[in-house]
This record gives sequence, structure tokens and C-alpha cells, in this order.
Amino acid sequence: MRAGIIGVTGYGGLELFRLLTAHPEINEVLLYSSSREGQLLSEEAPHLYGINMDQLRSFDQLNTDELDVLFCSAPSGASTELLPSFIGRKAKVIDLAGDYRLKDPDIYREWYGKEPPDTSIVNKAVYGLSEWNQNEISKAGLIANPGCYPTAVLLGMLPLLKTGLINPETIIIDAKSGISGAGASPQKASHFTKANDSLSVYKINKHQHIPEIEQAMKTVTGTDTNITFTTHLVPMTRGIMATMYAELAEEIQFHSVTEVFQEFYQAKPFVRVFKENTELFTKQVYGSNYCDLTFAIDERTNRITVISVIDNLIKGAAGQAVQNMNIMFGLNELEGLKQSPLFP
Amino acid sequence: MRAGIIGVTGYGGLELFRLLTAHPEINEVLLYSSSREGQLLSEEAPHLYGINMDQLRSFDQLNTDELDVLFCSAPSGASTELLPSFIGRKAKVIDLAGDYRLKDPDIYREWYGKEPPDTSIVNKAVYGLSEWNQNEISKAGLIANPGCYPTAVLLGMLPLLKTGLINPETIIIDAKSGISGAGASPQKASHFTKANDSLSVYKINKHQHIPEIEQAMKTVTGTDTNITFTTHLVPMTRGIMATMYAELAEEIQFHSVTEVFQEFYQAKPFVRVFKENTELFTKQVYGSNYCDLTFAIDERTNRITVISVIDNLIKGAAGQAVQNMNIMFGLNELEGLKQSPLFP
Amino acid sequence: MRAGIIGVTGYGGLELFRLLTAHPEINEVLLYSSSREGQLLSEEAPHLYGINMDQLRSFDQLNTDELDVLFCSAPSGASTELLPSFIGRKAKVIDLAGDYRLKDPDIYREWYGKEPPDTSIVNKAVYGLSEWNQNEISKAGLIANPGCYPTAVLLGMLPLLKTGLINPETIIIDAKSGISGAGASPQKASHFTKANDSLSVYKINKHQHIPEIEQAMKTVTGTDTNITFTTHLVPMTRGIMATMYAELAEEIQFHSVTEVFQEFYQAKPFVRVFKENTELFTKQVYGSNYCDLTFAIDERTNRITVISVIDNLIKGAAGQAVQNMNIMFGLNELEGLKQSPLFP
Amino acid sequence: MRAGIIGVTGYGGLELFRLLTAHPEINEVLLYSSSREGQLLSEEAPHLYGINMDQLRSFDQLNTDELDVLFCSAPSGASTELLPSFIGRKAKVIDLAGDYRLKDPDIYREWYGKEPPDTSIVNKAVYGLSEWNQNEISKAGLIANPGCYPTAVLLGMLPLLKTGLINPETIIIDAKSGISGAGASPQKASHFTKANDSLSVYKINKHQHIPEIEQAMKTVTGTDTNITFTTHLVPMTRGIMATMYAELAEEIQFHSVTEVFQEFYQAKPFVRVFKENTELFTKQVYGSNYCDLTFAIDERTNRITVISVIDNLIKGAAGQAVQNMNIMFGLNELEGLKQSPLFP
Repeated sequence: MRAGIIGVTGYGGLELFRLLTAHPEINEVLLYSSSREGQLLSEEAPHLYGINMDQLRSFDQLNTDELDVLFCSAPSGASTELLPSFIGRKAKVIDLAGDYRLKDPDIYREWYGKEPPDTSIVNKAVYGLSEWNQNEISKAGLIANPGCYPTAVLLGMLPLLKTGLINPETIIIDAKSGISGAGASPQKASHFTKANDSLSVYKINKHQHIPEIEQAMKTVTGTDTNITFTTHLVPMTRGIMATMYAELAEEIQFHSVTEVFQEFYQAKPFVRVFKENTELFTKQVYGSNYCDLTFAIDERTNRITVISVIDNLIKGAAGQAVQNMNIMFGLNELEGLKQSPLFP
Repeated sequence: MRAGIIGVTGYGGLELFRLLTAHPEINEVLLYSSSREGQLLSEEAPHLYGINMDQLRSFDQLNTDELDVLFCSAPSGASTELLPSFIGRKAKVIDLAGDYRLKDPDIYREWYGKEPPDTSIVNKAVYGLSEWNQNEISKAGLIANPGCYPTAVLLGMLPLLKTGLINPETIIIDAKSGISGAGASPQKASHFTKANDSLSVYKINKHQHIPEIEQAMKTVTGTDTNITFTTHLVPMTRGIMATMYAELAEEIQFHSVTEVFQEFYQAKPFVRVFKENTELFTKQVYGSNYCDLTFAIDERTNRITVISVIDNLIKGAAGQAVQNMNIMFGLNELEGLKQSPLFP
Repeated sequence: MRAGIIGVTGYGGLELFRLLTAHPEINEVLLYSSSREGQLLSEEAPHLYGINMDQLRSFDQLNTDELDVLFCSAPSGASTELLPSFIGRKAKVIDLAGDYRLKDPDIYREWYGKEPPDTSIVNKAVYGLSEWNQNEISKAGLIANPGCYPTAVLLGMLPLLKTGLINPETIIIDAKSGISGAGASPQKASHFTKANDSLSVYKINKHQHIPEIEQAMKTVTGTDTNITFTTHLVPMTRGIMATMYAELAEEIQFHSVTEVFQEFYQAKPFVRVFKENTELFTKQVYGSNYCDLTFAIDERTNRITVISVIDNLIKGAAGQAVQNMNIMFGLNELEGLKQSPLFP
Repeated sequence: MRAGIIGVTGYGGLELFRLLTAHPEINEVLLYSSSREGQLLSEEAPHLYGINMDQLRSFDQLNTDELDVLFCSAPSGASTELLPSFIGRKAKVIDLAGDYRLKDPDIYREWYGKEPPDTSIVNKAVYGLSEWNQNEISKAGLIANPGCYPTAVLLGMLPLLKTGLINPETIIIDAKSGISGAGASPQKASHFTKANDSLSVYKINKHQHIPEIEQAMKTVTGTDTNITFTTHLVPMTRGIMATMYAELAEEIQFHSVTEVFQEFYQAKPFVRVFKENTELFTKQVYGSNYCDLTFAIDERTNRITVISVIDNLIKGAAGQAVQNMNIMFGLNELEGLKQSPLFP
């Protein structure tokens, strides 16, 4: 198989490159860039010196008929411009940006502050939450790969929502991310001297991943749900932890939460269910495609606390994209994603 | 004035030493240790080389009649053993451990897993949340200095509880601490290689600061309240951020939250109220006695999110202890605590 | 006394502000900016919220006849443009940039790649290495405040050069700095995700502090010396460690290195001489004006290793500038600089 | 092939486990422990939950006739006790500790402060610096795998020593390591609150890797050489940078240093030679078996500065051990070690 990557110099793109070049079914990975055409990847990314000494190709050279799969890891908004001409050709397309995730154009406008892409294309896009949409993904030509926060949140919440164990209207999510989530461009908030040894809160109830989470929850509950959602930047490179709170519903008396999680994920190799009250830490999934889950029930308040950790650049981006590619091409889901977490 | 410190080699004790030696009203600071008697402080704490070259004194040398104030920064549990013989003498006593904070001995037993100190002494102890108990503190002979998490949480929650703006039964607190909160003794969770570049969750709904927060909330609401409370370790040295969630009560239509905070804290120099939706970060209070507050109201869910940041070792421990000393001795609350935050 | 600061929003400027507002002899600190005129300092620097709510003044408002001392913490090159009109007026001037440090205009051109300032002004400037030029500093109207690396290096090397204990031609300096040394503007090398959990080397033998060190060494040795000098960026906010190597000269048989250091620095309150072979760490001077020194003699190779640590923003910039102000105005050298290091 | 690991819960052991379980020629990896027999590896190492749910085996169960290769990653000193009974059996042995590296028992006693292992075994051990001893390694039954610092240093120095480009007597090495180098046991120096945001120096001229480096240099130069060697702890998890200094010999006029490095390493896939004066950083090899090299020549001082970076746990420990296994078993050197560096 031949794969193409648009936006390889971003952090999602670099991880795609790393995973795809080690993937046993991929023979060739072609790299495209709009702004860095002709440049060496290894200049931008010295860790790849000697591994890839190719120049980045221009878009003019991008012929999707010569590719089996095209990954787009350009910034949100760029996919709306770039992808339409590549969709519906030979290559299946997996987009890592937010552009094709939201079905309702008004909601897209409201949260992204931009014009949404063409509705007909949005309608074709399948939301690539691998563990929950496997069937649709396997038939899709265009995947809207989930955001990093939604991946961590939905894998923890959907089993409880689906079984009615929690009250959807009571969901509060306190999410924390490593700083690679802010991208590869230097900015004030990600300046080392500002971010180091400090924890910050940002976009309280305003993160564009909120409608994405709510849309996915609705597919399971059937009703509109509004969540409270706070995001924090943690002085670490990679990793997301979502700490999620909800009131337990009456249904809980008939179920064991552990069993519910185990049932949903027993055939899902990338979700690891830990026993109740485990003290998870983000580095236990560093460099891997795992999502690790635990929970605690507080009888004093009748609430459940669910904890989910992922590597934001892998299960939260490039890894899940490769997992979706595996599903789309009928490969073993684990192919190219078997790396253990790197600890310490 | 003459001050004594028990437990100076712990992190709270080191901060007490730093603040007291720079305090304009303190002439002498005497240092006591049970385990390190005779040792040089500067060997244990090389940053104090040349600043203090004294040997640590033994407890036998501790004569509270020669002191005006005695700070105890020994680990929780130790104060119960150590302090009784020093209470009711000339020196006023400020205890930084949890021993004298909880009025109900059964609750102490349950959460600390230890036998509580003598009830008659506990009853004399005044809870030293400086901004809320100033009057009682000014008359006290024994202060139970608040925990780090409770300080951050209560300064954010009490104004809203007092004015009835939030529903006490809906409070959920997601707290994050720098690793100095785990103390000066090397342990697995605070081993650099384990903690660096990683975020961990611990003691979900089991932290001993929960009953302390609930007890203080009751003094304002008059009713028992159970909170949901999660604690996290962030890869940074100092700082606590508490992200607090609650449902807004009907009362909210008659108030502006900003004004409520400003009213409560306008005469309180160490609480800084930021405008709604400010992206606070812990380092903005690093090295200072400030507690910084902001909030956001989410009309979609009728919830409020309150954010509070402190330096856990200062406003969350030694700084508040000095502030309490100032109040007890009729000094200006700011004395010895005027240092600006150290940034970057 | 009235002090002015140009460039207060840089890291050196913020430290000047912090130190000067706490200085017992300074009544007023006026803040000037070319690019941020009219802006609130507390917007740029939220840790100062409530501490300073003034707008930054424009240069037009800068009247040096109304000031006693003017600090310039603008970037290198800017001082050459800005300062000439302010020199020779009532206010004494302390410049933290590199512009006035090098006496030889050709060397300035070579290492800075810029046109040097007017020779007549350069000739008036006194190099503000407080411990070594105290007499000249006390009479100066213009101080060229030393660079961060040169401060750490020279305090360690000059006593050994002065006493002839080391061979000047054999000096090799391996210097390491925290990332605040790279300034407040976001750049690729100081992007958190790039710099965190990584150590980098930069400007091997090309750092502009090399000629500054060599010039100062010559004032002591009388001969031209070339040093080998490497700089590294360490994933920490503050701190410099210089690890310095040299061959011992024959003179060594008549001296004890410890005694040499102690003699030079016994009356210098900000230099702390530790015993041979102490395992120094940068955080032992964090937030203070100290320079800590140790050394080790290797009899196998006849070389000495000298270690020096400072807080790059204090002894390496703003703190030494205030120390120089104290000397210029006949104040106690320690005034306003008595803060203990902040540990942990 | 079947591999065994002694000491799998240390950091070197965990990396061995990760690499060997992903190695295409290894069918089974058996784990042994003296102190944790019967425990689950995944309890000690939660990142391996679901990946390995086996109990650790006791030494009694260790039958080297059933293994092809046995890795020992026990602490220095332990190998001397443990290994003798396993040597000379079917399984080839690769020891990651320092016990079998030094040929001279007196030097071992002096630097390790312990009794050396049996001379007859030491004499059989081949020093496993893969790029330099390939031939001997391929025939060995017992490998003394190099230390982390020696690996970084020797790969940078040996080509220059071999070609006579530098004067061996002038070598000064300033080495910096991430804190995983201090091992998995919590200690004061590796306590997060002590180590974070700080750089420390330790064991100046006293590190036990000094005689190992000198012994290997002698195999190339033929003469005894004493080096000056300083070690530092950097607040990062992994990575070593060695900054190495030496005087250029006359020989230099006939050679290009770049060409010398390229010649030595052109057939060595794990050494990447960067062009002169590249600003290397440790994270460019994070998670990989690469050693990256650059250098700078300073004509002013006639010295060369060589920079080498490795991942201390991979090329500096487990990765090189696997590379040696590949060589010993006639496999492609790259087998099981093809992972790209993980960046960011």
C-alpha cells in the first residue's frame, strides 16, 4: 500500500510518518506540503535525519489515484480548502482536523468561527471513533478522525451512557492536556518559560471539542446533552487525562460498572480497563495507542468519577487514524500499532 | 518577637524559616527537631548555607515561655504527640498539620486512620482560614492552620455558599497540586523519573482534606454537605489549582458573581479577583501569599466553574501561618508577606 | 529615590521591577516602553495584577532629570539607539544589554554583527561586575551590567587567574542555562514541546559572551586569552551552571584553592564558597542574588574543575544591576537583595 | 529464540522487555527476579498491564540450558554474585552492569569499592561496544555491555584517537544525563521536588565510568590516558549528552574530521554523523538506538569540541544489549531496533 501525508511537519503528521513507515502493509509514504515544498523533512525534524532524506512534495504532485490512502494533518480550516478535490478518488481519505466532524453547519460556525465545508462532503464523512463506529468506518471513503479530548472522553462515557448508568445532564468533564496539543508553532502559552512548572486553565466551556463530544453522545443517548467542559495545559509534552463526573442513574443497581466497561471493550485491544480506583497516570500510555480507564463510585454523593488517559498524539490523533486505516482496509486493527508504552 | 519552628527541614518548615527570618517584627527564629538534633540546617538545606549555620536544637531545649510564637510543621499525627505540653503556655501555637482541624473525633478517625488528639485541646483550636476567621484568629492561643487544598477551595466556594448562589449538594472539585505537596521524603510517586512529563490521579474521593472542606462549608451554610473531590499530581514543584463546579441557585438572578467576590475580598489583600473567564495559571502566584480567583458561568448548563490558584507552600501552608501570626499579634496582615510572585 | 525602567516586560525588566519596588530606598518606579506604550503592565504580566495597575509610559515622557537612576533592559542593540540622549544627565544609567560592555569596536562588530555605539560613551561605561570593580562602579555614571554567563564564569575564574593558579591558555568552559536566558519572545528553541525533557547545545564557540569574558580576564592577567566556550539549554526556567576546566600552574604548590576563594570573597556577601567537591545545584540560588562556588582538583590530570551557579535573571542580570545601584549610591550592597533562595 | 531477563523491574530491564517482546526473532521472554518472585510485572509496571500478566519467576526456575540468551540487568555488584553459575552453559550471557567491564581487578576495587568478580570470567567477557568490537562480540559467550556515559563518549572520541587527530592527554569530558540514569529506586537526588527545574553536578572526577572509558581508549591508542570527567543531572527523564574537548594534533592538517567520522560510521546504522556545528538535542534520539554526533573546530584555541547524544536507556543500555545479541546470533544488527525516535 501507498500512503500520502499532508502536513507532515506538524506533530500529528510526524506521528503519522513514524507509524506508517513502520507499518508492515505500507510500502511507501509520500509527503506533501503547501508551505514547505522542496524542503527536507529532516531539516524541520532532525530526529528523522538518515531515516528520511526526501524533499517535501508540492500539492501539484499529489495524485490521489496513485495512493491507497491519504492522511490530512493540516490545521483545522485548511482541510475545507484542500480536501474536496481529493475526495471520491481512488485513495481513501482520513482527515485529522475538525472540519468534517460536526454534522450541523450552524454548530460548526458557532464553535469554529469559520464557514463549514460543503454539506454533501460532510455527510459522507464517518466519525472515526474506532471502538464505536467500526462497521461504518470499514465502509467509509472519508474519515473525520476524532479530536484528542473527545477520544479520551467518549471512550470513558459512552459505555455508561449506552447502558443508562449515568444521567447525561449531569456530566462535567475536567480535561488536562500536555502541551503538544497546542501544536508545533511557538506561541506565548507554549513558550517554555511561561508553561514550565505551571498549570493553566484555558477556554472554559468554549473549547471546539464540546459540540463534537455532545454530537457523539447523542448518537448513543438519542437526546441532546450539554456538558460542562474545562481544559487545562499541563507542563508535559504528551498525554491527556480526562476526569469525568456524573450522577449515577437508578439503573446502577442492576449493573457492575467494571463489568459494563469490560463487556464493551473486551474485544477492543486498545482500551485497557483497570480495576476500580486505580491511580492512573498519563505516562502509562506514552508512545502507545492505548486508552486506559478506571472509575470510582462515591456513595456519599451518588456520583461516579471516570478517569481516562491517552497519548494525545497517538490514540488522540495519528494512532487512531492508522487504526481506522486498518479497519478500512480489512487489516488486523493492531497492525503497525503494537508498540508498548515507553516508560519511563 | 521570638519564634520557634518544629520540623524546619520539611517543605512547610523551610518556607516558615524563609518568611520568619525576613519578617520585620521577628528578632530571632529558633529551630527544633526530634530526629535531626545537632545537625546543621544548612547541610540538610544547602540553599541556606551562609544564611543559617546553626545546629538544630533538641526538644529538651524547647521552652515555650521563652517564645512568643511556636510553629509546628511536623507531619500529620506528630502534632498530637508533640504539642499538648506546649499549649497554654506563654507562646501562641500555630500547627500546620491536620491534627487539630477536625472537630469531630469520629470523622478524624475515619479519614486519618489515627486516634484524634485530646478533645479539650481540639475545642480550643481555631481554624486559621485567615480571610474568613479573622476575629476568632485574633483571640486564639492555638491555630489549626488550614490544609493546602482546603485553602484554595474554600476561598473560591465560601462567598458563593454564603450568598446562596450555588447549590451546595452539587459541588464537584477537581484539584491539582504540584509535587512539593507530597512532602520532602523520597517516595515512588514523587520519584522524578516516574512523575516527570506525566499527570497522575490519586486518592479519588478519599483525600483527608475532604472532611476539612465540608466542615468549613457547614459553618457557612449551616447544613451538612458532601462534595466530590479528586486530587491530581502535576509535574511541577509548587502550585495548586482547584477547578470547582456547582449548579447555580435561583438566587443568582439577583447578583453579579464578580461583585460578590469583590465585596467579600475587597479588604483582603491576599485574594485577587480576576475578571470572568480569565485564563489563570499557577505560576502567577509562585512564591507569594496570593490566592487568585476567576469564574465562568455556562448558561447552557446553568453551572458555574470557579478557578482558584495558590502556592501550596505559602498561602497553602507557611504564608497563611505567618498571616495568622500577624492577626494574632495585632500586626498588619501584610507584614513579612509583601513579596511579589516570582515570574518567570 | 526614583528609578526608571526601560523594557520592563522582558524577563530582566520584570525582575528589576520586583526588586526595585521592594527596595527600601526606592520611593517610585517609573516604567517606559517603546512598543507597548499605554498598555497595562498587569496585562502583559498577570502575576502583577493588583500590584501595579499603571500604564506603561512612552519615551517622550522619559525625563532623566526627574530620575535618580535609569535601568535599561532593552534587547542588545536597542541600547545603542536609546541611551545616548539619557547619558550625562542627572540620572545614573545602568544598561543590562551587551552594547556598552566591549571596549574594542571591532570585536563588538565581529561578535554582535552590529555597529557598536559611540566610542566616547563606551569609554565612560564601567563594567559592573560588582565583586571585582566596586571602586570604579561607585564613581560611575554609566554601568555596562555584565552578561549572565560572564558573571558566573568570571566569579569562578578571576581569583585563580589573579593568583596565577591556573594557566589561562587552558581554560575550557562548559556552560548551561535555563531557558529564560533565551528571553520572553516565543521561538522555536524555547517552544515547550521542543525544549521540555531535552538538553540542547547551541552556539559552540560563537556566543557573544566569549569576548566579554576574555576582556575581563585580561584586566586581571594582562595578556590576551582565548577560551573554549560551549553553551547548552537545560529544561528549566532559571539558573546557570558553569563548569570550568583549567590546568593548574606551578604556583598551586604554594596555595590552598579554598583559601584563595575565601580571601577574595570573604567580604562579598553574595558569593558563597562551598568546600571542595560539593555537589552544587542551580536551585540552591533560585530567586536570590547569590553566586555559589565549589571546585575539585584532579591530581591524575593536574587540572582543576570549578563550578559556579547563579540565578541568571538575578545575579546574572537584575540583581547585579540593583547591587551596582547600591554601590553607586553609597548604600549597603545588600539593600533590597536580602531574599533567601526559594527552595523547593 | 528464547530470552531470559534478570532484573526486569529496573529501567534497563523494562527497556529490554519492551525491545525483546517486539523482536522478530524472539519467541519467548522469561522474567526472573530475586526480590519480587511471584509478583506480577504489571503491578510494578502498570504501563505493561494487559501486555504481560505473568508472575516473575524465581532464580530456582532459571535454567540457562532452556534459554538462548540471558540478559542480566541487576545493579552493579549483583552480577558478580549471580552470573557465575550461568556462564558457560547453553545460553549466551549479556550483562548490563559494570562488574565484568574492567579487566584490571585493582582498578575495579578502586573505583567500585567492591571485590571484583573472578578473573577467569572477567577475561572471557567481551566489551560490547557494538560499533567497535563487532568481530569479538560475534564470537563471545559473555558480553560486558558498556555503561551509558562510556557509550556516548567512546563513539565520539575513538575515531579521533584512532586517527591521531587529537592529543589523548588533553581530553576533558563534560557529561550530562537525564535522571533515569540514577535508577528506579527513589532517592534524595532524584526526588522530583529536588531535581525539577534544577541542574546538579555530581561525582566530579569520581564516576566509576572513568576507568571504563580510559581502558577502551587505551585499546585504540596503546597508551594510558587520564581524562577529566564531570557528570551532571539534567531535569529530564532520558538522554545523555557528552560535550568533549581536546587539543587537535598536528595530524589534523591531513584530514577532514567530517570524513573521518563518516568513514568510521558509514556502515554503522546506529551512528548518525551530522554536519559540523549542528545544534544537537537529546530528544532527537529519544526512544531509539541512535547515537548522534557533531563537532566544532575552534581555530582560536586549536581545540575540537565533539558532541554526542544517546538515549541512555537504549543505546546506553538495553538497545545496545539487543544490538549485541543480534551480532552474537548472526542476525541483522537492526533487527528489533528499527524504531524511529519519538518526537516530540
